[in-house]
Amino acid sequence: MSRSEFDIIKNFFANCPAAFPSEHVKLGIGDDAAQFTLPHSSVELRFNVSMDTLAADVHFPADANPGLIANRALAVNLSDLAAMGATPLGFTLGLTLPRSDDLWLQQFADGLTALATKHHCPLVGGNLSRGPLHIAVQVHGSTQGEGIQRNGAAVGDIVVVSGVLGDAVAALASFALPTHLDTLLEFDLGSLNDEDRTYLQRAYYDPEPRVELGQACAGRVSAGIDVSDGLLADLGHICAASGVGAVLELQRLPISSVLNKMLATKKAQLAALLGGDDYELCFTLAPDRLAEAQAIAAELGVPLTQVGVIEQGSGVRCTGEDGETVAIPRSAYQHFHQE
Amino acid sequence: MSRSEFDIIKNFFANCPAAFPSEHVKLGIGDDAAQFTLPHSSVELRFNVSMDTLAADVHFPADANPGLIANRALAVNLSDLAAMGATPLGFTLGLTLPRSDDLWLQQFADGLTALATKHHCPLVGGNLSRGPLHIAVQVHGSTQGEGIQRNGAAVGDIVVVSGVLGDAVAALASFALPTHLDTLLEFDLGSLNDEDRTYLQRAYYDPEPRVELGQACAGRVSAGIDVSDGLLADLGHICAASGVGAVLELQRLPISSVLNKMLATKKAQLAALLGGDDYELCFTLAPDRLAEAQAIAAELGVPLTQVGVIEQGSGVRCTGEDGETVAIPRSAYQHFHQE
Repeated sequence: MSRSEFDIIKNFFANCPAAFPSEHVKLGIGDDAAQFTLPHSSVELRFNVSMDTLAADVHFPADANPGLIANRALAVNLSDLAAMGATPLGFTLGLTLPRSDDLWLQQFADGLTALATKHHCPLVGGNLSRGPLHIAVQVHGSTQGEGIQRNGAAVGDIVVVSGVLGDAVAALASFALPTHLDTLLEFDLGSLNDEDRTYLQRAYYDPEPRVELGQACAGRVSAGIDVSDGLLADLGHICAASGVGAVLELQRLPISSVLNKMLATKKAQLAALLGGDDYELCFTLAPDRLAEAQAIAAELGVPLTQVGVIEQGSGVRCTGEDGETVAIPRSAYQHFHQE
Repeated sequence: MSRSEFDIIKNFFANCPAAFPSEHVKLGIGDDAAQFTLPHSSVELRFNVSMDTLAADVHFPADANPGLIANRALAVNLSDLAAMGATPLGFTLGLTLPRSDDLWLQQFADGLTALATKHHCPLVGGNLSRGPLHIAVQVHGSTQGEGIQRNGAAVGDIVVVSGVLGDAVAALASFALPTHLDTLLEFDLGSLNDEDRTYLQRAYYDPEPRVELGQACAGRVSAGIDVSDGLLADLGHICAASGVGAVLELQRLPISSVLNKMLATKKAQLAALLGGDDYELCFTLAPDRLAEAQAIAAELGVPLTQVGVIEQGSGVRCTGEDGETVAIPRSAYQHFHQE
């Protein structure tokens, strides 16, 4: 019997009596962020909050560059705000350190600064304590009304995704770290030059949170999520929340030239589908909204690729070039996988 | 050279360019919570956020009762909202677990529920991942305007504290765990009966966050903080933020009968002054507000004791029964203490 973190969250937390409804909680467990309204506020402004934690040697090598760790910790959280269509307001940091090390701390703080400044999202508080290296970041952002949630996808909507997919898992392989796709894929590391390795390192530690794209698409798309568990799993979350199914056309998946060097086409498609940690955005939208969304993305310099459509039913199926359904091994990343 | 977490926060985070000013951040690093206002909001409602993290074997024994750990993790955060005079809105949880254990998870979730329900503060989201046991909790609350901050204490104000002080450090000693006061104090454990031990266990794992007291005192007190580092250190934070000094009368410190059994009077006063983890509230207020605050506290069934006054200067000094200044060993809890 396998137990994913989704099962644990559902069984012990989402259905826990501690997660009771409240008039000030407009959106609770189960989306990229939770949403509060303030008591006595006359306008429908919502305060979006999202927390992600990173543990050493689980989410990053303990000896990784502190600036890169900091950057990644903030970026993955900003990506959740992006998926809500929220405007960042600030972040808190819970930093647990085995020891005080000035050089490490300075590099870590510097790593926060560039991204915080770029997205107008200052550090506002948090907590520092001693223990095994662990980073908790919570971001806060505002939306006018509900922003972009997971539950609005409708049959006939188009599925689009920003950027390219699959580079983050390829990056782990290029660092000689194990990945959850090792039994499925054999990455050809010999094909990589220094430039490719730098590209992959950036893809993993310095993902570009699509904050402007999310803000601009709020009110224009029917549902959205950021691609953290892999497109197949994350689009599956949209389908489950919306009560629909989806079909993905594998040959449409956006794949980088570096990933194409490391894997043959069909394997690269699997990496794009199952890899996770891409922190791109996946939206569903009505067909007559597509041109507008593509114009917005083009203006921001972000590729936006049509990869599938929403259909009746449940779950996500994939089709090959001939339009036939292709069986995909079930391998989305799971934190708790046990026999 | 010793380096406290306060120094680290000041050097690397409070003064870090990532902590830049923003029109939506009304209060940043350095108080019990940070405060946001929402863009385009017409009223002066502030969204208060505070994060505290607990690592196994640093903040609690790894094999401690999961319900008690959960309770403590939420309580210490609610205490920060109490110190701001904020109304709780909800909390997020970043839970890092070495393995999935149903019994542990169920007890942990149950431990959250009672306190969350009592304070109308539901679980709204968070993050679950694998790694060494670690708990990050962030609470969210609202204040009308600035609530209670640390920087408003004025010369002549009275210093009051809720509840009793020093039991938490005595509890650690009763668990046979090391405390930061072990070189100063020898706790007489032989004097404790089962009821005393139960009392101490509750004092440590189940501190009563003074949420109603904080809310009721907002607008009535000049400054406030929760007692997490020990009254001497925490009143020191108020003095530093307010540009004043304070004098504490040692014989006025509120001490439980259990602590009085474990330590002689002067030692018990040191435990109350330096112990920390009490999660009581310390306020400063104008003398003509004292009767009103005491009436509020009495209504809530919370002892509120006058322990000192704000004076010109800087830092906190303590006086004995004869009114003479008493030297206090410098021993507030520090996470990072190195030679």
